[in-house]
Amino acid sequence: MSAHTIIMTQGKFMHRDSLTFPFEERGLQFGDGVYEVIRIYKGRYYLLEEHIDRLYKSLQATQITISQSKADLSYLLEELLLRNKIINDAHVYLQITRGSAERVHLYPEDTKPNIYAYVKNTPRPLKNLTNGVAAITYPDERWKNCYIKSLNLLPNILAKQNAFEQGAHEAILHKDNVVTECSTSNVFLVKNNAIYTHPANNSILHGCVRSAVKKFAANLDIPFNETIFKLDDISSADEMFLTNSIDEIMPIVKIDHNIVNTGHPGSITKQLQIAYQMDAKI
Amino acid sequence: MSAHTIIMTQGKFMHRDSLTFPFEERGLQFGDGVYEVIRIYKGRYYLLEEHIDRLYKSLQATQITISQSKADLSYLLEELLLRNKIINDAHVYLQITRGSAERVHLYPEDTKPNIYAYVKNTPRPLKNLTNGVAAITYPDERWKNCYIKSLNLLPNILAKQNAFEQGAHEAILHKDNVVTECSTSNVFLVKNNAIYTHPANNSILHGCVRSAVKKFAANLDIPFNETIFKLDDISSADEMFLTNSIDEIMPIVKIDHNIVNTGHPGSITKQLQIAYQMDAKI
Repeated sequence: MSAHTIIMTQGKFMHRDSLTFPFEERGLQFGDGVYEVIRIYKGRYYLLEEHIDRLYKSLQATQITISQSKADLSYLLEELLLRNKIINDAHVYLQITRGSAERVHLYPEDTKPNIYAYVKNTPRPLKNLTNGVAAITYPDERWKNCYIKSLNLLPNILAKQNAFEQGAHEAILHKDNVVTECSTSNVFLVKNNAIYTHPANNSILHGCVRSAVKKFAANLDIPFNETIFKLDDISSADEMFLTNSIDEIMPIVKIDHNIVNTGHPGSITKQLQIAYQMDAKI
Repeated sequence: MSAHTIIMTQGKFMHRDSLTFPFEERGLQFGDGVYEVIRIYKGRYYLLEEHIDRLYKSLQATQITISQSKADLSYLLEELLLRNKIINDAHVYLQITRGSAERVHLYPEDTKPNIYAYVKNTPRPLKNLTNGVAAITYPDERWKNCYIKSLNLLPNILAKQNAFEQGAHEAILHKDNVVTECSTSNVFLVKNNAIYTHPANNSILHGCVRSAVKKFAANLDIPFNETIFKLDDISSADEMFLTNSIDEIMPIVKIDHNIVNTGHPGSITKQLQIAYQMDAKI
């Protein structure tokens, strides 16, 4: 991924090297902030409105108040692409913290949130989309409010790194034998031509691609069940896949060194991938 | 709290305003780091070795490797006090993150951890130590590895802020009716002249003052039980108190608007406070 030079911060644009933060910044000392990762295909945002809606939900849940409206933010993000002359596949990282202030747990007074967003070239992961990826299973050690897309990502990092060290792409998280999601993606099981995924409650991030999959499934007349499935159900799954804004709809073909069904992406996963490509116009 | 001007970073000393971090820093984007808050009385550290030992446990648990030995770090922290001419009561904040690197969850290669420490004047909270403080009860929504003193502090912030908005000093956290600790301190219940506190397992931070209290209790022949107590036990407690490096051993005299026993600090709490003062030579 190569980075573009113009970064947006506090509603203004500057060279990326000019943006630094003091050591007493609430993101840096507490992870006291929220973020979004938004996909761009051929220079155009995909699911932008959904990401901005979710961002505001995260802001509300953490009681961080910004002066920008959703429309303001959307406009700034569009300008970020223009100023960097983005015409290819990329992603934007957008972060908002409670601001720079002396380190005290309580919300600081008279402190403005720190906002920044940058864009990076990000090719589609075509090889993995075609062949599928391996995953491990890993205990879900995260906090109770995973619907908030917060900067408290240490458990996610530890899980993802563990997967990587075992030669896998992702860690499928489970709590009390129930599969919640992955370390950086939502996860789905297909059985008897129906899709199963954890309900969008406080235990998982409400993925924008997850919502898109729900829509695609409805259009394709594939039953979409937002009901839990368990670790034990994985061994008899017909298909497994994961979703996020970078990985799109990615088949999982191996879990803890066991092959999922035939070891190849399944037909429902492939149908959803085609629906995704049509929706994203790629 | 007023801040002193010389800050330690990467084993060197500089003016605090010179230290800034890039926006792609793993503390800032992931909370991917650990920290310590260490007490200073009359220009001398209290429990320094205990804090450094715990720091290395947090580093090990998060697989962050620094080039400094414990002795190196101790030496740097002593030099920090000297360079700032600290002779009064203060505290040091020390933070170590996995470093500055392009944002990817996986541990970056060839990246050095970012280390910094600064010192601030911090008077003893004498009024609260004498009169006690109010607390609320609040659900423990944190992750499963609270023994790691990590920068993922959003749940602690939300709990502490909630306490503040209800006019209280702290939030007593509970999970499945079991009291774990507070948002920024360990918590203790006294009943029939015995002390009860949550075992030092993964569910709580292993407080340095908590360990000191265990030692004081042994010296004073007060039974110290590292066994859980429940929310329901609070209403019949003889005394309640909390501990951390800033609050020392602080009586809790009101919980959720209910008075604890007489509403005044209890005799065991006071004995422990005296033992603390003797140990800390204050």
